[in-house]
Amino acid sequence: MHMKEPQRTTQDILEIMLSKDNFSRWLGLEVDACRDGYCRLHYRIRDDMLNGFGIVHGGILFSAADSAFAFACNAQGHITVALDVSISFALPAASGDELWVEAQQIHAGNKISLYDIRTTNAGGQLMCVFKGTAYRTSRLIQ
Amino acid sequence: MHMKEPQRTTQDILEIMLSKDNFSRWLGLEVDACRDGYCRLHYRIRDDMLNGFGIVHGGILFSAADSAFAFACNAQGHITVALDVSISFALPAASGDELWVEAQQIHAGNKISLYDIRTTNAGGQLMCVFKGTAYRTSRLIQ
Amino acid sequence: MHMKEPQRTTQDILEIMLSKDNFSRWLGLEVDACRDGYCRLHYRIRDDMLNGFGIVHGGILFSAADSAFAFACNAQGHITVALDVSISFALPAASGDELWVEAQQIHAGNKISLYDIRTTNAGGQLMCVFKGTAYRTSRLIQ
Amino acid sequence: MHMKEPQRTTQDILEIMLSKDNFSRWLGLEVDACRDGYCRLHYRIRDDMLNGFGIVHGGILFSAADSAFAFACNAQGHITVALDVSISFALPAASGDELWVEAQQIHAGNKISLYDIRTTNAGGQLMCVFKGTAYRTSRLIQ
Repeated sequence: MHMKEPQRTTQDILEIMLSKDNFSRWLGLEVDACRDGYCRLHYRIRDDMLNGFGIVHGGILFSAADSAFAFACNAQGHITVALDVSISFALPAASGDELWVEAQQIHAGNKISLYDIRTTNAGGQLMCVFKGTAYRTSRLIQ
Repeated sequence: MHMKEPQRTTQDILEIMLSKDNFSRWLGLEVDACRDGYCRLHYRIRDDMLNGFGIVHGGILFSAADSAFAFACNAQGHITVALDVSISFALPAASGDELWVEAQQIHAGNKISLYDIRTTNAGGQLMCVFKGTAYRTSRLIQ
Repeated sequence: MHMKEPQRTTQDILEIMLSKDNFSRWLGLEVDACRDGYCRLHYRIRDDMLNGFGIVHGGILFSAADSAFAFACNAQGHITVALDVSISFALPAASGDELWVEAQQIHAGNKISLYDIRTTNAGGQLMCVFKGTAYRTSRLIQ
Repeated sequence: MHMKEPQRTTQDILEIMLSKDNFSRWLGLEVDACRDGYCRLHYRIRDDMLNGFGIVHGGILFSAADSAFAFACNAQGHITVALDVSISFALPAASGDELWVEAQQIHAGNKISLYDIRTTNAGGQLMCVFKGTAYRTSRLIQ
């Protein structure tokens, strides 16, 4: 007899992903909302995230946006990977700054989807904009 | 009397930058060669760099390439910042993998320069390719 | 006696630019609205804009968006040039299709500005998304 | 009885594509070499390719590189489409300039491939660099 697998919710999938995502935990990401095609999260810049000029390393801004991208595009349960990202930096951030990341799907094809992801500071200023292309595989998240 | 500042070498500038660059130290980057317009470095993927799928988080690959970009384009002594980066991911990397990053300037304008930065694994396979645009300010690195 | 130059409006600048812009005329671009940081235009795909698969050549979609980018970021009167563009293609267009392009500034720095430019078809579907970085020179448009 | 289809060469496929590619013909592209993963071509900037500043429209530089991309990634016979392109502009070109475009595959996955495409002038100076991601469908070019 074939036992039907219990239906997983978006929340279940997010928890599975987050529980294994060591680097997102290191970043201190706090997910505020997540559903298929959408994610909003926030985090705080720490001293160990700074570069040689005493401002946030560009890789931190990229990484938090990339995690939001992953959470939004995996929420439907199939393993989905980033193919390409273009990021433009607008303003620097300093230690202690709280940043907000919002990922929105702007196109959903059969295999390929596009996301627009913006990071803003507490004053609502744009820190960086991230445009990402994702490829959905046929494998399920487990 | 005006004392002339001693001439700084590329090595001096790199050491100033690295000594303050907390996140590059967290990444464990080892710089093998660095001069104006060029940088080669390597690092090893650790467990705390993995994402929810047990492979390296895309933000780590971006960050190491972004550091190589910063070292190469700041080696002439003026503070130079990334404006835009486009990164394409080719292959995943796993914990324990040693990765090599090579940053090469492909255009040097008055203010704007372009870099092609490739990350390869020990077998020489391309992990990702990073194209970056930098803007040189008139401020000196101190 | 020094005669003060008459104040040029955004409309004047757009007309100066368009009158000399041979390729935008070849594209048949119709500008619907243009002001500093914003442009909306439309055009129709013709047979001579198709590629070897009988759909619109990607270069046409890029070019029309690039013109909207130029009109929006030059409307303040200083010559402003594109440094970097990232474009993602969502859906193909066919001969006869009317396409709408909307360029919006999302960041304005001192020299550098960022634009998000989207092309949609008559049904409102996204054809492509274009993220551009512009550099403002100190030269005036004449 | 099943008649085996005659084997098509890269040259056959290129001729099929070019014969239908109206916009590449308008651009006046001359293909010098083309094989799976590689294309080299040249063309000359004409007055009708200029923008409002009297230099080549960025869309022309993009389009010629995009055609080289298409020729290189379709040479194996399956319809292959561009997903994402990032282009960085280095130097302007003027009417009469002859430009050379070289497209090289830098990664070939199962479905996804990456290309680095550079445009240079007669003096060997870099005009622009184009990084493209292609997706190979299962449909054959006919």
